[in-house]
Amino acid sequence: MRRHVGKQSIRFDLPPVIRAAASVVGPKEGDGPLKDRFDRIMPDMLSGTNSWEKAESALARQGIELAVDKAGLSMPEIDYILAGDLLNQSIGSTYAVRSLERPFFGLFSACSTIGEAMTLGCVLVDGEYADNIAAAASSHFCAAEKTFRNPLELGGQRPLTSSWTVTGDGCVIISSSGKGPRITAATTGKIIDMGIKDVNNMGAAMAPAAADVLIHHFEDFNAQPSGYDAIVTGDLGSTGLKLLKTLMAEKGYDIGENAFDCGVEIFDAKTQDTHAGGSGPACSAVTFASLFYPKLCEGRIKRLLFVPTGALMNSTTAMQGETMPSIAHALRIEA
Amino acid sequence: MRRHVGKQSIRFDLPPVIRAAASVVGPKEGDGPLKDRFDRIMPDMLSGTNSWEKAESALARQGIELAVDKAGLSMPEIDYILAGDLLNQSIGSTYAVRSLERPFFGLFSACSTIGEAMTLGCVLVDGEYADNIAAAASSHFCAAEKTFRNPLELGGQRPLTSSWTVTGDGCVIISSSGKGPRITAATTGKIIDMGIKDVNNMGAAMAPAAADVLIHHFEDFNAQPSGYDAIVTGDLGSTGLKLLKTLMAEKGYDIGENAFDCGVEIFDAKTQDTHAGGSGPACSAVTFASLFYPKLCEGRIKRLLFVPTGALMNSTTAMQGETMPSIAHALRIEA
Repeated sequence: MRRHVGKQSIRFDLPPVIRAAASVVGPKEGDGPLKDRFDRIMPDMLSGTNSWEKAESALARQGIELAVDKAGLSMPEIDYILAGDLLNQSIGSTYAVRSLERPFFGLFSACSTIGEAMTLGCVLVDGEYADNIAAAASSHFCAAEKTFRNPLELGGQRPLTSSWTVTGDGCVIISSSGKGPRITAATTGKIIDMGIKDVNNMGAAMAPAAADVLIHHFEDFNAQPSGYDAIVTGDLGSTGLKLLKTLMAEKGYDIGENAFDCGVEIFDAKTQDTHAGGSGPACSAVTFASLFYPKLCEGRIKRLLFVPTGALMNSTTAMQGETMPSIAHALRIEA
Repeated sequence: MRRHVGKQSIRFDLPPVIRAAASVVGPKEGDGPLKDRFDRIMPDMLSGTNSWEKAESALARQGIELAVDKAGLSMPEIDYILAGDLLNQSIGSTYAVRSLERPFFGLFSACSTIGEAMTLGCVLVDGEYADNIAAAASSHFCAAEKTFRNPLELGGQRPLTSSWTVTGDGCVIISSSGKGPRITAATTGKIIDMGIKDVNNMGAAMAPAAADVLIHHFEDFNAQPSGYDAIVTGDLGSTGLKLLKTLMAEKGYDIGENAFDCGVEIFDAKTQDTHAGGSGPACSAVTFASLFYPKLCEGRIKRLLFVPTGALMNSTTAMQGETMPSIAHALRIEA
């Protein structure tokens, strides 16, 4: 396994190119700090459908189609689609992909799905099994609240540690050729469970998983946080990001200067009532596609560590008194 | 992409070895035709836990641990675990894997999950990213009925086209070295939706997906069904298998002589009241591990095409009047 590095990392011999990235979001995201950066903003939460689930699939299909288009490719040139979401049995993705007629790998890694999709997509391209793959992740605020928390009609209060599920789809096209930043390495996460049970504090559940994969990444490559212009976590939110910095400091790593979190970037917590920040598989996917990918393309960021994070519970486990296992995947992306 | 063959297949240059396979099942499976072949039969549906969901995770963890043990490996030697199941947000797998401390890729492909796990596992091993991977899939009859159909307490009648979700976990260890049959090629399925809406007739929804991937496999490799000693579909059941033979005959392929279905093999439909047969991610995983894998090891089957099948709906899509998109993945395994 000559491409394996250290304990849980891989180095890509023929670093795959992120040839394009696309973001399609809902109205609240389109009203936030990144509003001028998204490719498409849906006017309402139903996107021309009659259910939130169908709206998510519509967003997800548009995200993939748009990314393929931006890459200058046609759908038949995409060898594999790798995608996932938060809905039961991943219907956000499967119903999005069914009309696209491409070989499909369905993934579930909650809010870290785009990290898993990009890692496996890079393996397929770097290993010469594919020329072009689409990696995508979606979520929808209303469909997620219904699935995981309370009916929206209940109007339940949300504690300040809670996050707001991003409505949208982010998709990247990873290719063996073309122009764009390259993914040079990946560290795949283990499931970490620190015993957090509060579904309104996912940042606290996920921060230890992010810390674990970051520490393994630095150890495997004998690297330091200062070697990266930006370390971008998925959706820890303000609460989780603070915890992550503390956990990393305890292990001797100072990530304070260049640590960003997609959940913090996507909303203006003060004016948009989103409390700890954004979350959901779309959170890291659309924030990467709209904010960080362009900076890598322009050379304003040279070396980025992208670390989508996910909490792996469901509503049944919460009711059965279970904790929230979490995971994070790291990808090194260089301009 | 030199390892790509035809439209949607790949050929493995360094064909990975299936070094071990393990099956852990529930009491009903342990009472069926394969009862002497399973590695472990749980005495009841709770497996020492207090919920069906926790029981599934317990089975799933045991299946993985047993397979690693049978391969003569220790858990830290497993580079990646790839697993999935039917429960909402794949909790059967994630809660099983959290204590195992291995890098994890969560997958969702419904009842075809073991096919997706083996394909991506082979890519990791053949591509020299890993030496050993564990590919696993689980399901639990009671947890699945509760998730997809009716509360068991309701005692609803089941039509004759319906199938019985297998309780169990099947796991294979795929390695770069060691003894055992080798996976020489894979054809990854597209999502196929022929408009079937009856959740009690999943065989009819999945048969067209199986036909599509089989036809692409034969075309990509310029092969014929007669070139295989056995073509083993996932969980079409008696209804779906009959349909598949008809669909294949219409395209000029006669698979009648050597076609088997895991859903047909695992139960005695006449005495076990399972109607069309077994289903669920565990169906193809445990039947392959207990029945077909040993025959490959003994050389009684020389060339097998393993085609796990899956229907990708959930209970919300059924209530919203949606159809059932399906998928199947094919793996060529040679003694």
